[in-house]
Amino acid sequence: MTDTFQFNLLATDGKARRGTVSMPRGEIRTPAFMPVGTVGTVKAMYLDQVRDLGADIILGNTYHLMLRPGPERVARLGGLHELIRWPYPILTDSGGFQVMSLSGLRKLDEQGVTFKSHIDGSSHYMSPERSIEIQGLLDSDIQMQLDECVRLPATPDEIERAMEMSLRWADRCKTAFGDQPGKAMFGIVQGGDVPALRVRSAEALAGLNLKGYAVGGLAVGEPQAVMLDMLDITLPALPHDKPRYLMGVGTPDDMLKSVARGIDMFDCVMPTRAGRHGLAFTRRGRVNLKNARHAEDRRPLDDQSSCPAARDYSRAYLHHLIRADESLGGMLLTWNNLSYYQDLMKGIRNAIEQGRFQSFMEETQEEWARGDLQPV
Amino acid sequence: MTDTFQFNLLATDGKARRGTVSMPRGEIRTPAFMPVGTVGTVKAMYLDQVRDLGADIILGNTYHLMLRPGPERVARLGGLHELIRWPYPILTDSGGFQVMSLSGLRKLDEQGVTFKSHIDGSSHYMSPERSIEIQGLLDSDIQMQLDECVRLPATPDEIERAMEMSLRWADRCKTAFGDQPGKAMFGIVQGGDVPALRVRSAEALAGLNLKGYAVGGLAVGEPQAVMLDMLDITLPALPHDKPRYLMGVGTPDDMLKSVARGIDMFDCVMPTRAGRHGLAFTRRGRVNLKNARHAEDRRPLDDQSSCPAARDYSRAYLHHLIRADESLGGMLLTWNNLSYYQDLMKGIRNAIEQGRFQSFMEETQEEWARGDLQPV
Repeated sequence: MTDTFQFNLLATDGKARRGTVSMPRGEIRTPAFMPVGTVGTVKAMYLDQVRDLGADIILGNTYHLMLRPGPERVARLGGLHELIRWPYPILTDSGGFQVMSLSGLRKLDEQGVTFKSHIDGSSHYMSPERSIEIQGLLDSDIQMQLDECVRLPATPDEIERAMEMSLRWADRCKTAFGDQPGKAMFGIVQGGDVPALRVRSAEALAGLNLKGYAVGGLAVGEPQAVMLDMLDITLPALPHDKPRYLMGVGTPDDMLKSVARGIDMFDCVMPTRAGRHGLAFTRRGRVNLKNARHAEDRRPLDDQSSCPAARDYSRAYLHHLIRADESLGGMLLTWNNLSYYQDLMKGIRNAIEQGRFQSFMEETQEEWARGDLQPV
Repeated sequence: MTDTFQFNLLATDGKARRGTVSMPRGEIRTPAFMPVGTVGTVKAMYLDQVRDLGADIILGNTYHLMLRPGPERVARLGGLHELIRWPYPILTDSGGFQVMSLSGLRKLDEQGVTFKSHIDGSSHYMSPERSIEIQGLLDSDIQMQLDECVRLPATPDEIERAMEMSLRWADRCKTAFGDQPGKAMFGIVQGGDVPALRVRSAEALAGLNLKGYAVGGLAVGEPQAVMLDMLDITLPALPHDKPRYLMGVGTPDDMLKSVARGIDMFDCVMPTRAGRHGLAFTRRGRVNLKNARHAEDRRPLDDQSSCPAARDYSRAYLHHLIRADESLGGMLLTWNNLSYYQDLMKGIRNAIEQGRFQSFMEETQEEWARGDLQPV
């Protein structure tokens, strides 16, 4: 345990990094995947299970939590950790991304953004200062600056305008966050798919000497190659001794290739959302349990998995549960998927420590490419 | 363990009975509550949890399982126990009740009933023989006769016609079931709210010398007093040395009062369905977690409960989860409710063994009547 927020780089292998992010509530082994606990719950999971799978940190969505139960209420209830029974680190996003993607009519200017709740249409205001205030009320350990995430494709002028405003907002967030030794506020690199703007954003943020840096505005519909190009361009401009978080990413393949470029942290709804819709991530690639080929398949999803959901239930049963829209189907496949994601990160960390990350990546990709079990 | 289906009466206290129903797959401690596993899953629960709460047996719905995944498919997959990972006893209903209540256009005559699936409108046929065949394909341990359950209020003529046909169907089901020493086929007393018809039904079924008897057609909207009157009238006409199962019942109070009249087994969707809708059963009575009074209440549902869901999570969090329609809310409250139901049955069994059932019932009812915790 530590009193202060710290990042320690333990090993590197090429550009891949193995480290720890430490803070009073615990230590995050990086590269790390952070399960998304949207509105104070990782959907269809008990948090004890999430912890047992190896998660050192989960993510909460400020937008959702500010609408329900509301940040002042969460604070009166002792903070988010206490409310949801997760005493370990929590990262909160700034709310900006969901304001742009989920909310109704909005008005955005230099000061902040006014938006309507997607739940009841009520009007809300968010500024850089209010976002940090809310994240403080939630008692978040890693807080994110408010930024403006432009949907791609967009014109370079529009991307630049939003990126520059996001830089000014980073500065305001830094001031609002102040001096909190046990916590961190991360800046977010923007700049769309324009290399020069990405570099400008990263360099300007580096100049703010923040405790960590995220890359935002990617995995928003662009080809994977564009995302990886932007990482190649952006990461050298960020300080080597600070954690780097790629927001909203991604598939297992996205994560492997991003680790190879020097990313330390990920979050994504994919394993949880896909699980509820019948899609399983396995060492043999993706398996769609809705598919009729599984209807009478008594084999488990993966008899070598560390997860009971993958090992102890037949594909036929999983198929039945998903087809019948039974909650246990989503519970089991979410469990499997989060297990797969955490085991993948564990494999990545071990491989970096042992200097064999490249071969681990290739072997993992080859096993995906060989595909699922042949039908019975 | 035993090779044959047996009922042993271990103790009585007034009319209340403490016994065991034994069969090759396990022993049911009676009075017993059977959680409902509608379509091969007790909704929002892992079956390991259901077992850990003390359930000796669960119920499967033949109507739902015949539509999905289908009885022949279940048989090819090794039977229902194997499919769902529940190696302990399973009781299946006959499908008749859901055919009457859920399905579309139907044609019913002496031979059986043709109905349309509520899922896709496909046409299906059910007869007494087919119902037993399906329950056999599911490999059910306790199978129920097909009956016609008349919705109350109904005319005495209509109740009598359906009851008499149900008796003829009981005989056909007995023949179809044949000689299966390790399993049982229960008859179902019908007769609506007409005492003479209830007695006629019970006496005629007793004459068939079945391994167990159910009371059906109650808890279908009539006042509790009518249900209890029918039990007072019916149960003396049933053999003392066979288990008695009150179908689809009920509230905790229904169960106490029915045990007091000599009922041994219950099933009901109430604890699971109510849980998903925010209603908790506790020793202090029912608690509606949707209610705003819980929004900032950091106390658990019941700090003396044996269930982590009741003990370890705040009411404020449960309120938030239910209000936000998050699956964990239903998972936790279902867990709490099934725990409460099983603990109540355990209390009932202990009280009967110790000859203090009447005082146990009164104390339990008094604690409900005192009501929930005062608001904070």
